[in-house]
Amino acid sequence: MCEALGTVRPYEQERRVVLSVLPHYADGAMSGPNMPARLLLGPGPSMVHPRVLAALGQPLVGHLDPEFLALLDRVQEDLKRLFKTQNQLTLPISGTGSAGMEACFANLIEDGDEVVIGVNGVFGTRMADVATRLGAQVVKVMADWGDIIHPEAVSEALASCRNPSLVAVVHAETSTGAWQPLEDIGELARSHDALFMVDMVTSLGGCPVEVDAWGIDACYSGTQKCLSCPPGLSPISLSERAAEKIRARESKPRSWYLDLSLIGSYFGGERVYHHTAPISMIYALAEALALVHEEGLEKRFARHERHHLALIAGLSVLGIEPAAAAGYRLWMLNSVSVPDGVDEAGIRRRLLLDHGIEIGAGLGPLAGDVWRIGLMGESSRPENIRRLLLALACELGGDGVAAVREADAQLSRAGS
Amino acid sequence: MCEALGTVRPYEQERRVVLSVLPHYADGAMSGPNMPARLLLGPGPSMVHPRVLAALGQPLVGHLDPEFLALLDRVQEDLKRLFKTQNQLTLPISGTGSAGMEACFANLIEDGDEVVIGVNGVFGTRMADVATRLGAQVVKVMADWGDIIHPEAVSEALASCRNPSLVAVVHAETSTGAWQPLEDIGELARSHDALFMVDMVTSLGGCPVEVDAWGIDACYSGTQKCLSCPPGLSPISLSERAAEKIRARESKPRSWYLDLSLIGSYFGGERVYHHTAPISMIYALAEALALVHEEGLEKRFARHERHHLALIAGLSVLGIEPAAAAGYRLWMLNSVSVPDGVDEAGIRRRLLLDHGIEIGAGLGPLAGDVWRIGLMGESSRPENIRRLLLALACELGGDGVAAVREADAQLSRAGS
Repeated sequence: MCEALGTVRPYEQERRVVLSVLPHYADGAMSGPNMPARLLLGPGPSMVHPRVLAALGQPLVGHLDPEFLALLDRVQEDLKRLFKTQNQLTLPISGTGSAGMEACFANLIEDGDEVVIGVNGVFGTRMADVATRLGAQVVKVMADWGDIIHPEAVSEALASCRNPSLVAVVHAETSTGAWQPLEDIGELARSHDALFMVDMVTSLGGCPVEVDAWGIDACYSGTQKCLSCPPGLSPISLSERAAEKIRARESKPRSWYLDLSLIGSYFGGERVYHHTAPISMIYALAEALALVHEEGLEKRFARHERHHLALIAGLSVLGIEPAAAAGYRLWMLNSVSVPDGVDEAGIRRRLLLDHGIEIGAGLGPLAGDVWRIGLMGESSRPENIRRLLLALACELGGDGVAAVREADAQLSRAGS
Repeated sequence: MCEALGTVRPYEQERRVVLSVLPHYADGAMSGPNMPARLLLGPGPSMVHPRVLAALGQPLVGHLDPEFLALLDRVQEDLKRLFKTQNQLTLPISGTGSAGMEACFANLIEDGDEVVIGVNGVFGTRMADVATRLGAQVVKVMADWGDIIHPEAVSEALASCRNPSLVAVVHAETSTGAWQPLEDIGELARSHDALFMVDMVTSLGGCPVEVDAWGIDACYSGTQKCLSCPPGLSPISLSERAAEKIRARESKPRSWYLDLSLIGSYFGGERVYHHTAPISMIYALAEALALVHEEGLEKRFARHERHHLALIAGLSVLGIEPAAAAGYRLWMLNSVSVPDGVDEAGIRRRLLLDHGIEIGAGLGPLAGDVWRIGLMGESSRPENIRRLLLALACELGGDGVAAVREADAQLSRAGS
């Protein structure tokens, strides 16, 4: 079942057609990364729609070209619709999701600020590290990996602070599959006059996100999860409260590259050069956002839920059960327990090399104990669920056809 | 002469062919950024070869896929050949050239370190800002914009320091067109036991660069200049001396995203996850580097010199003269004085909108006084020089044909 293409170059004939009409380069030899075909069902990158790939491959214009600036405006508007916000400071940072995380902290905290951070996985741990490096006094709210951060614990942490300036949690903990409720924690932050920051790297585009309605002051995401765009950009959104805090800073942000006052001058009306915008990735993001809005947010979220339920139903037939806390399981990132006695890494490797399917390993304390199965954006398709169930049955034993039938029955119950 | 494609989607038929063979997506509708065709002769991005565009548009694999890791190894080896270095810490940072600048400073300086920085344009100014934010005590060595930093001035600055830890200059000042000699300043840095850092954003791939031979401890570049790859990555290289300094740090770098100890663990043998590598941009960089090495570095540099001389010869016929200091003019970025009485911005705008040619404006004190004409990587072609000379003659008046003949005569003298 291996679909690796080996030394065959995919789409060589079609690329020759494209090349033959390009100016200046009729003699261009063919080359390319020659990667094998993979079905990406890990924690990201997810599958990328060919319209997004085609946008990536378009010839470039300059970062101050009026046509490009109009495209940037469209990207900002489409991001606002996605984040459900009117925030003016909504834009893609030129780096991956972790750069978005660092941008939010670098702009919103100054030396000595007290920051409360929920730590129940890799990305909460990372937030605490980033904030500490930038000079914050971090108060960690710990929870087991796979569990959520409970509002009572946040309340206690806030009570222990003199003057907390910010509360931060991870909406979708990619390392554990836990889905963090946000509204109670947001209220607690506001009641202490602290900003509320949320990591939406894995949630944005796959489940409901309501930046304005939930009182979120800063959030960041990544392109390679539920937006099904290649990795490399981090959409962020900051509220007017957050912008006010930035304007009132006593010191410049430690990072020049991520200084939102400067970046905002390029995205705003003035178009002041900051750094050269990553043109091709912006093309890709614009196309990915167009696809999201063509599908419609409600339909897209329902699709993610439906396929999550179908996957879990099918896996159950194979004796594989969810690992995240019941009631708080993400739709787009399914953390599941590796059955006893199974060679976790060996199975994962055979899925990749023999079946062409990528799934993710566990991280930190969950290493060796869980697999992380992403059904994000374009990866969230019934045919992908069926292919994975059959491949797992081949490798682990078990009735693969029964597993697929159970998944299909679940899809039928959901009306798809 | 306008080549803007308006509402016609370029290569639509060819994209349909490509889509028709892609799995899962036979019904994919066509869309895309619909940008006009531009000849990019500004300060970057430069023209991108269709092989690089084709690589960008390839389907993705995961950032821990063994095939992708093998590609990363190839990218690192090709970068070492380009930087002329054996430095193990040679890799692409996941951000633009300015992220590379910030990565070098964030890892190499700690609070209170004395840093000597040459400031003779936008990018020296930026280095001083970045280093100051990261806690350095910056000693600026000033020079006029368009001039170079003179070693005597660096020597004086070093003498004024207690314990200078780093000396930094810009090899190719993109804002002025000045070409900074490096060897004397490198020796001065070493004689004070300071690290030597060089901004190679615009020079790398367009003129000789000898990281090991010149004793450079840290340097960074960008992909969208002489490498003719889209913007979004910053190749960097750090010497063993620099790596030793990082290992001996008393504090963590202020930036988690740019922490080279962590990034190095992903690029090195351990493959520890740091952030999700920007897969598609790495595909593009791999292909751009393949093109560079297929051409050969010596041939590539000679091409940039030859076309610089041809451009200058042709512009002279139109009464347009170089603005950077004689003897120190860059080949790939030609800063030229706008003739008296000419509407600088109006001409530039008509070049873009009527002729489809982008050139750059002056920055800072040079705004309104110079144009910046890039002949970088794929943009450095005789046909582009001819097209620009004719367009300038159309807009400014003057004998365009004579200008082209003069440029061609210069090319003949250079034997091309």
